[in-house]
Amino acid sequence: MASKREQPGNLQSARMSVRLLDATLRDGGLVNDFRFTDDFAKALYTANLASGVDYMEFGYKASRSLFPAEKFGKWKFCSESDIRAVVGDNDTDMKISVMSDVGRVNLESEVVPKSDSAIDMYRVACYVRQVPSAIEMIEYCHKLGYETSCNLMAISKNQESDLKQALDEVGRSPVDVIYIVDSFGALYPEEIRRICDMYLEVGDKYGKEIGIHAHNNQQLAFANTIDSCAKGVNYLDATVSGMGRGAGNCYLEAMLGFLKNPKYKIKPMMKFVREQMPSVIKSGAKWGYDVPYLLTGLYNMHPSSAIEFIKSNRTDYENFIDELLDID
Amino acid sequence: MASKREQPGNLQSARMSVRLLDATLRDGGLVNDFRFTDDFAKALYTANLASGVDYMEFGYKASRSLFPAEKFGKWKFCSESDIRAVVGDNDTDMKISVMSDVGRVNLESEVVPKSDSAIDMYRVACYVRQVPSAIEMIEYCHKLGYETSCNLMAISKNQESDLKQALDEVGRSPVDVIYIVDSFGALYPEEIRRICDMYLEVGDKYGKEIGIHAHNNQQLAFANTIDSCAKGVNYLDATVSGMGRGAGNCYLEAMLGFLKNPKYKIKPMMKFVREQMPSVIKSGAKWGYDVPYLLTGLYNMHPSSAIEFIKSNRTDYENFIDELLDID
Repeated sequence: MASKREQPGNLQSARMSVRLLDATLRDGGLVNDFRFTDDFAKALYTANLASGVDYMEFGYKASRSLFPAEKFGKWKFCSESDIRAVVGDNDTDMKISVMSDVGRVNLESEVVPKSDSAIDMYRVACYVRQVPSAIEMIEYCHKLGYETSCNLMAISKNQESDLKQALDEVGRSPVDVIYIVDSFGALYPEEIRRICDMYLEVGDKYGKEIGIHAHNNQQLAFANTIDSCAKGVNYLDATVSGMGRGAGNCYLEAMLGFLKNPKYKIKPMMKFVREQMPSVIKSGAKWGYDVPYLLTGLYNMHPSSAIEFIKSNRTDYENFIDELLDID
Repeated sequence: MASKREQPGNLQSARMSVRLLDATLRDGGLVNDFRFTDDFAKALYTANLASGVDYMEFGYKASRSLFPAEKFGKWKFCSESDIRAVVGDNDTDMKISVMSDVGRVNLESEVVPKSDSAIDMYRVACYVRQVPSAIEMIEYCHKLGYETSCNLMAISKNQESDLKQALDEVGRSPVDVIYIVDSFGALYPEEIRRICDMYLEVGDKYGKEIGIHAHNNQQLAFANTIDSCAKGVNYLDATVSGMGRGAGNCYLEAMLGFLKNPKYKIKPMMKFVREQMPSVIKSGAKWGYDVPYLLTGLYNMHPSSAIEFIKSNRTDYENFIDELLDID
């Protein structure tokens, strides 16, 4: 069956349905415990606006009762007042998103109706086995007036039939966007293109948009993102300089250069990179490609062991391979 | 017309026709003027052998009369005695290659018959306009008994019709392998797959193998290499840790992890990375992804201006964009 989204464009097209999402404060926050300066957050908001970014994700919506406030910066919690301090009324075309992990936020006490909120979209992150809980959250946020997405994590570990069933359940929910998430940076472009077909079929069936969130363990985050885009995936995640856990993410700068819609501009983001990123790196935040991340990506595993390996200043990569293959 | 090379395998296949070429001493030599220690070269030879690498490129075959010997390490010239000092009789399955640029080597005085040489393959690098000269060199080396390749550089700058004519000329020569070279790291996977089709058609017509040499300006070197491999391109270039000019190359470690033929082993290369690469980096050799390389890749330009920009410790990326777009 020919999908309505087949051949949605070529490299020369400006596809108006594309939505670029900057997840720097959120995924980048995982490597500095969300301790960004206010100046950084404000400059990023300004840069995203000037660059034509469609969504800016401010961080997680997590409950302070579950996470000690002194251990994290403000973007772990994304209070309305903290967001308002940056965006004011956000009288712009750029939308604001936050992410919530299943079970890590008390929706009833934390989420206000959309009309009282600076937030436009709740992105619900879950594993396949948590889909029923995620759908509850999605329904709740949808009822309060928010856009929602379901970000199914670590799908490279799932059985295809389980994933298909989960996608069908999510498809029948009121969710707006279903995300392909390559949490471990394990998927090759050939696989990503196949997975896009699977998701787009569900999207077409239920009228949902599809998104992609890629990790850079094997230096494939940008390739996987633009190949997904070519397939018809419209919601594209990226972070400034790829800032994110472990090997990091797809580079926002690269996406701004790649996308052909004239509204996307690379220069304001270059200014931001020049003015703001050196101090983040100087403050000790570390991310980006390194051998141990290649290995966890290659063997389809969570990057936590690679993060630990690097923190311990180990370089005995051969032993690390043995450990990885032993514990799987 | 269905090509005999369509669907040559999938991600699970071990394709026996694949040849992995390590170009560390050659492309990596461009960032340290070929000043590798003897220990490094020997350890690399050992690591390549143990990893199942098919070809090891030792460097350039350039004439000492054209390049001052004191300005370069030995692998700019690749004398037989220097190669022999590393490989002895090279009584192994791994082949030895060198690269020669059109006009930079005096073949008559520098190239001995294959029976007297440690070298198995001459790779002739040229621009499309130099193809007639390259073919002369290829014919000369072929007559002396060597395998040959033609590495057509900077094809992202060529008109497609010129490139097609050049490919046809090269196809009619005795060359064994025709290489796709993305010198500027400008090509996206979607384009690379299209270019693969063009080269493979010529390869099928004339009975030539096709190769790929990718650069990492947009972090697409690995993606472009494995996508080419999936298309039926058999000769795959890579370097240890991507060492190479500017943003560098496709990572050999990533290729060893990706390829499914059990003869390829990642562990010996991990040992080499651990033992040898820190001292190369410490000696001042610099390569790898950086914003200016992203920009020259994006705008399809030679990385020389980016190398200069970085050397000058400049970070005024916005001005750099203006300069790039001005001089094109």
